[in-house]
Amino acid sequence: MTTHAAPRATAPQALTRCRASVEPALRAAVESLHPQPRRMASFSLGWCDADGTPSAGPGGKGVRQALAVLATEAAGAPAEPGVAAAVAVELIHTFSLVHDDIMDGDERRRHRDTVWKAFGTGPAVLTGDALFALGVQTLARAGGPHGAAAVGRLAEALGDLVHGQADDLLFESRPWTGPGAVGIAEYRAMADRKTGALLGCAMALGPLLAGAAPPVVGALSEAGRRLGLAFQAVDDLLGIWGDPGTTGKPVHSDLRRRKRTLPVLAATALDSTAAERLAGLLGSPEPLSTAAAAAASAIVEAAGGREFTMEEARRQVAGAYDCLESVRLAEGAREELVELCGYVLERRV
Amino acid sequence: MTTHAAPRATAPQALTRCRASVEPALRAAVESLHPQPRRMASFSLGWCDADGTPSAGPGGKGVRQALAVLATEAAGAPAEPGVAAAVAVELIHTFSLVHDDIMDGDERRRHRDTVWKAFGTGPAVLTGDALFALGVQTLARAGGPHGAAAVGRLAEALGDLVHGQADDLLFESRPWTGPGAVGIAEYRAMADRKTGALLGCAMALGPLLAGAAPPVVGALSEAGRRLGLAFQAVDDLLGIWGDPGTTGKPVHSDLRRRKRTLPVLAATALDSTAAERLAGLLGSPEPLSTAAAAAASAIVEAAGGREFTMEEARRQVAGAYDCLESVRLAEGAREELVELCGYVLERRV
Repeated sequence: MTTHAAPRATAPQALTRCRASVEPALRAAVESLHPQPRRMASFSLGWCDADGTPSAGPGGKGVRQALAVLATEAAGAPAEPGVAAAVAVELIHTFSLVHDDIMDGDERRRHRDTVWKAFGTGPAVLTGDALFALGVQTLARAGGPHGAAAVGRLAEALGDLVHGQADDLLFESRPWTGPGAVGIAEYRAMADRKTGALLGCAMALGPLLAGAAPPVVGALSEAGRRLGLAFQAVDDLLGIWGDPGTTGKPVHSDLRRRKRTLPVLAATALDSTAAERLAGLLGSPEPLSTAAAAAASAIVEAAGGREFTMEEARRQVAGAYDCLESVRLAEGAREELVELCGYVLERRV
Repeated sequence: MTTHAAPRATAPQALTRCRASVEPALRAAVESLHPQPRRMASFSLGWCDADGTPSAGPGGKGVRQALAVLATEAAGAPAEPGVAAAVAVELIHTFSLVHDDIMDGDERRRHRDTVWKAFGTGPAVLTGDALFALGVQTLARAGGPHGAAAVGRLAEALGDLVHGQADDLLFESRPWTGPGAVGIAEYRAMADRKTGALLGCAMALGPLLAGAAPPVVGALSEAGRRLGLAFQAVDDLLGIWGDPGTTGKPVHSDLRRRKRTLPVLAATALDSTAAERLAGLLGSPEPLSTAAAAAASAIVEAAGGREFTMEEARRQVAGAYDCLESVRLAEGAREELVELCGYVLERRV
């Protein structure tokens, strides 16, 4: 990684600026929905409570929309395609959260009930569908001579997203040890589809819409994919060692849910004794006690799963930096992208 | 309606021919899915049993894919865009069936379990999402200079589809009489979105991809929308008076489910005594007995709801004929489209 001059904005400042430039268009898009899915979509975006009362809930961090805006600026393109890309990606991301929460049976997200928990499964299915359709619509309407390429790119990311989610669900039925166990390479392929694809897409769409040169689109897209893998690795760390007061999830939540995450898979691969002990704790059908989850967390850490995962995140971010250095980009936006990469590594929520 | 010379094929022949030309591409598209959603998608398309054993189940009638192929031929375009359009529309239609069955709690479709009933709700959500993404992908990949227009058109239809489903679900919570009751105009707007939009889209996409003249695309699209309204009206008739042995649904199934359908809404609008009696039968929270469903069916028929609905279907089909006469089309394909319109009116399943 090269050293950089002081950027024009810190990551939180960049996130705030991008959110401010995207939010009016995002709200206008959601406003166009049928009243029922509109309210549920607004709830899932943190804009209102379940009864429709406006709220200033935390919502998401807005990393995807910021990447879309900054990548477009970095490509030297005007703001509009970046905003259209950001809105489309944010809608698709929200769709995937709403449907994944149904599939995973998750009841809480961002310190509040998930959509299916608050409104029921059927309405949550509809809300996801509405967000999905609206995301495609938003990008298709952004149009222009490069509209087809952008929609095609989004369609590929959608396919990856679903494929990755299918893999993730299937991992849950796999054994913890032996030849049928989930390997690290398989896990990475899943994370690349489930998280990397949409972040890569987020950074590609605005430049694509604006007709940026293919090498620039390619470098930004690859930076997004790598950042997605880093993001997922940090997510996996927070899912075990995150502060429940900050993440809004119970302590050791991913272990309690017996999720295949990188720290556990790495611990299993690095240390066969740890693998046996983890298989004993996580492979049993009984509900995982608080003590067992804490024990599993200690085993994963002692076996090196935590450090391996942090190192994976660092390596992917370094790869993203390399991508951002490999082509000529607008300097201010590039610096903010670099800041955002650092933020992904250090985030606590 | 004008009289026509003997067409080159009857509706069943045209359906068979079009299905044969679309099926290889449809199977190839589904084959590209992740194995889990692929098996569930194949099940929902009638290609295999729940355990994956290939089956020659009835599947759908294939009206949408036939309309896509014939409209493309009618516009004088080559076959490829018609097949791409047919595959995309069939995938999107199947997505909507899979998700609607979750939302409506329907356990049976086409003489077999619905996807959520056979595989669980979460996997059914994923299957729908996979079909949705694949539908958009298929069309985006068909590409060409007019790819953006076609994807934009599909995106609009997707928005309509979700909006119509949201209306349909919301209708269930409305009163049966009084100012809050669902009116016929509202019902038509719902059906236009829920059914008309995708049939209109089916007939527009191939011609759009092939760069057909806007008046031709417009006339074919409008014919599809009207055919969609006719299709929905006949569906409503079959939902009450269809033969359970043919439809695969219980006798009076839509009445048992207290669905707002055109025959009931028309009976309510046409005859205030019938309206009161229907409100008494259908508005009560108790499960509807076989006798009560039969009584409701007789009331709807005596009040003219059945005839009104049949007349609505006939009028919409006549409108579709007019659209097909309004522009210059390839004669053989136009005749087959006319045959298909007649088939929609007379179908029993």
